[in-house]
This record gives sequence, structure tokens and C-alpha cells, in this order.
Amino acid sequence: MRPADELRELVEAYVDELELADELGALRQPMRYAVDGGGKRLRPVLCLAVAEAAGADVEDALPAAISLELVHTFSLVHDDLPALDDDDERRGRPTIHVAFGEANAILAGDALLAEALRLALSYDDAAVARELTDAVLGMIGGQARDVAGDNGDLTLLHRLKTGRLFAACVGCALWVAGIPEPEQAPWRAFADELGPLFQIVDDILDGDGVVLVHGAETARRLADEAAERALARLRQIPAETYVLAEIVAGLAARTS
Amino acid sequence: MRPADELRELVEAYVDELELADELGALRQPMRYAVDGGGKRLRPVLCLAVAEAAGADVEDALPAAISLELVHTFSLVHDDLPALDDDDERRGRPTIHVAFGEANAILAGDALLAEALRLALSYDDAAVARELTDAVLGMIGGQARDVAGDNGDLTLLHRLKTGRLFAACVGCALWVAGIPEPEQAPWRAFADELGPLFQIVDDILDGDGVVLVHGAETARRLADEAAERALARLRQIPAETYVLAEIVAGLAARTS
Repeated sequence: MRPADELRELVEAYVDELELADELGALRQPMRYAVDGGGKRLRPVLCLAVAEAAGADVEDALPAAISLELVHTFSLVHDDLPALDDDDERRGRPTIHVAFGEANAILAGDALLAEALRLALSYDDAAVARELTDAVLGMIGGQARDVAGDNGDLTLLHRLKTGRLFAACVGCALWVAGIPEPEQAPWRAFADELGPLFQIVDDILDGDGVVLVHGAETARRLADEAAERALARLRQIPAETYVLAEIVAGLAARTS
Repeated sequence: MRPADELRELVEAYVDELELADELGALRQPMRYAVDGGGKRLRPVLCLAVAEAAGADVEDALPAAISLELVHTFSLVHDDLPALDDDDERRGRPTIHVAFGEANAILAGDALLAEALRLALSYDDAAVARELTDAVLGMIGGQARDVAGDNGDLTLLHRLKTGRLFAACVGCALWVAGIPEPEQAPWRAFADELGPLFQIVDDILDGDGVVLVHGAETARRLADEAAERALARLRQIPAETYVLAEIVAGLAARTS
């Protein structure tokens, strides 16, 4: 089992070598800028770790892992647009529409989504692409609720906007590993805990959401409980999952 | 063989019944508005006609056909945005960003693309989804060149922006019909003539492009020659293609 930081190096190397479609022409420049923006590569690392724990070769899971990262990048590029969150900076750099103009940001986001699908479709089994597409639909539904200020059910909003893509990191890895659907349940139960864990820690780091509602102390306790639940789910999985436990601990303790 | 207007009725009925993902919530409203906008349904009708000529059941080709229409709709919704073509009206109605706001137009476009992929992925064979995804990448590349004013190679620009999706209408139908790749060549040679034909007639209707360069009379001659080339390609296909000949004639003679 490779530790998370080694998996992350594999992700970075694959991203560096990634060939975007020739036909995209100059649009590849804002796309590369967006993908090279750093970030923690949480989603692809999670996908690779699940794939290895489930018995796949890590290398076989790389296209699926990177497809998840491209979907995440697509969502950031569009969410940062003036008509949505109107963010000028991300990770200390100008956002895509600031650096390349709004039209290029819209088209680069579209093309990142299409490239993600192309990677997911590089597998013989279309299940990876189906898992990814369903997650994208859920994620967009969450973002649409957020934009509309439709916060009546905040748990649903976060489950869609954040949780669906985390869950797909696990789901895609299971398909790559060839785990039949009836045996996927304990893995997917684990996957469902990751979105809430990520979201509570996000609120703690931003000082909003659950922190505003319940205070910082309670928020920290809720994060620790979410991590505990995820670890409890991990123990139900009949596989070697200590790298995944390390990832859960990292999600709970992250400071950015 | 069903005539084109009967195929179009099948398309309209399928579009009416189309179930968008529940998780999209209220975003389904601008999506439906965009899809219901009418239009001639040229792409899905072409797909169905090729599928039937190639030996498939028309009903089996409907998901592929509608996926092409959803991709076309996604591209219109994003191209109409203020940062791109900034169009306030389409087919006599306010465009999506005018009717529902810019954020909803961006997200509805994204979701239409994802729904298109979901339909394309409803087939066991992932070839339909691969054909569609590759066409989307080419189409976005064409639009990016257009937005950038990169008109140095106008033929390439149109081949990408318009031609790739027309070609995919034929390609997707061939996969649905189970035509093996080595036997697809004559069909694809026919497909490659449709984008230029559509584009020249578009220029004639809008009074721009080839009309500005060569004048109206030459443009009409070029359109007729493009139609002739398409019909000549059709005669090379070992199948009953009179419905496709009717569609070519319709493309050449269309007035809107």
C-alpha cells in the first residue's frame, strides 16, 4: 500500500503529462492554468487509495482519479465566475476569468468537463463514466440550490454540492477494481461520510456554516465525530484500509 | 423507412417525456425552457434516419439522438451568454440568461451537457458516449477560436464548431446500429459533407460569411455543390438512403 503522499506524487505526474485534445487549440492554456493551480488533490488521491485497497493496480485507476480532479476543477472555474461566486482569486492566483477573460473561463470549464468524461471513457467498462456523470448532475444540482439561496435543507445542499463527488471517488475506484455491485455497500457507506466531514472542516476553516450556527467548539466536536464515523465504516470493509484511515485523519486535521 | 417529419415527431415526443435528474431541482426549469425552444431538431432526426438506414430500430437510437440535441442546446445556452455572443433572443423568445439569470444559464448549460452524457451512457457499448464526447471537445475548440477572433482558418473553425456535431449524429447512429468500424468509412465520408452544407446555407440566411466574401450568387452555387457532394457520398453507401437524401435536400433548401 502506498502512502497518501506517494499517491499524490503519482497524481501530479499524471496531471503534468496529461494531453488535452488538440482541437481545443489555445483554450488549452486556461485549462492548464486551472488544472495546475495546485490544491491538495484530495479527490484523486482518495480514488487511488480506494482502488489499491480494493485490489486494483494504482496505475489502472489514474485516468479515473484524474477525471475526478478535472470535474472538481471545472466546478471551481464556473463557480468563480462573476455571475456565481464572483471570486477574483483562488489559491493566491487570479481566477481564470480574471486571467483569461470570462468567455474563456466558461469554455475552459465546459472543456474540462468534457475532458473528464473522455478520461472516464478510456475504460472498457462504462460504469466509471456513469458514476462520474451521475455525480456531476448531483453536484450541479447542489450548486444551483446554493446560487438560488435555497438553503432550506442545508444537509441536502452539501450532500449534493460536495458529497456526491467524494462518493464518486470511491465509486469509480470500485469499478476500476472490478468490485461487483452487491459487494460495494460497505465501501459506499464509508464514502457517504466523507462529504459531511469535508464540509464541517471547511466551515471551521472559513468560520461560517456550522460554526455560525453552533459555535467553534461544537463544530470541532462534530468534525471529530464525522471522522470517527468514517473510521468506523472503514473497519466494516474487508480489506487493508490503513491508508484510507490516514486520509480520513488528514481530512479532519487539514488547515487549508 | 420513416420520412423525416415522422422521425421529428418521435424526437418531439421523446423530448416531452424526457426525465431530467431529480437532484437538479429547480434548475430543471431553465433546462426544459431551453430544450422546449423548438428548433428544427435537425441533428436528432439525422441520427435517427442514419440509424434506420443502417439497420437499427429507430426506437433504439432515440437516446443517442436526444443526447445530440441536448449537446446542441447546451452549446446554444452558453454561446448566447453576455460574455460570448450576448444574444437576448433566440427563436423569438428571451434567451436563458435573460429569462432565468446568468448563473442559472451557466449551470443549466453544464447540466444539459451532463444529461446528454447520461443518455449516451445508457447504451451497453460506450462507443456512443465516446463519439459524443470527442465531438463536444471539437465543438468547444471551434467556439473558442470563434470567440478569440481566430479566423485564420475559417474552414477549420466551421468544421469544428458545426461539423463535428453533425458528423457525430452519423457516428452515434452507426454505433447504435452495430456497424463495425471498418465498414463505417462511406457513412463518415457522407457525414463530413453535412457541416459545410449547413454552414454555407447559414451564411446565405444570415447574409454573412461566404456571402460577404463571394457574393450571394456564388454562395448559392457553393451550397448546391455541397449538397451534390453529400448526395454523391450517399450513393456510395450500400443501404437504402432516400430518407437521408430528403434530409440533404432539406438542409440545402431550408429558409430558417
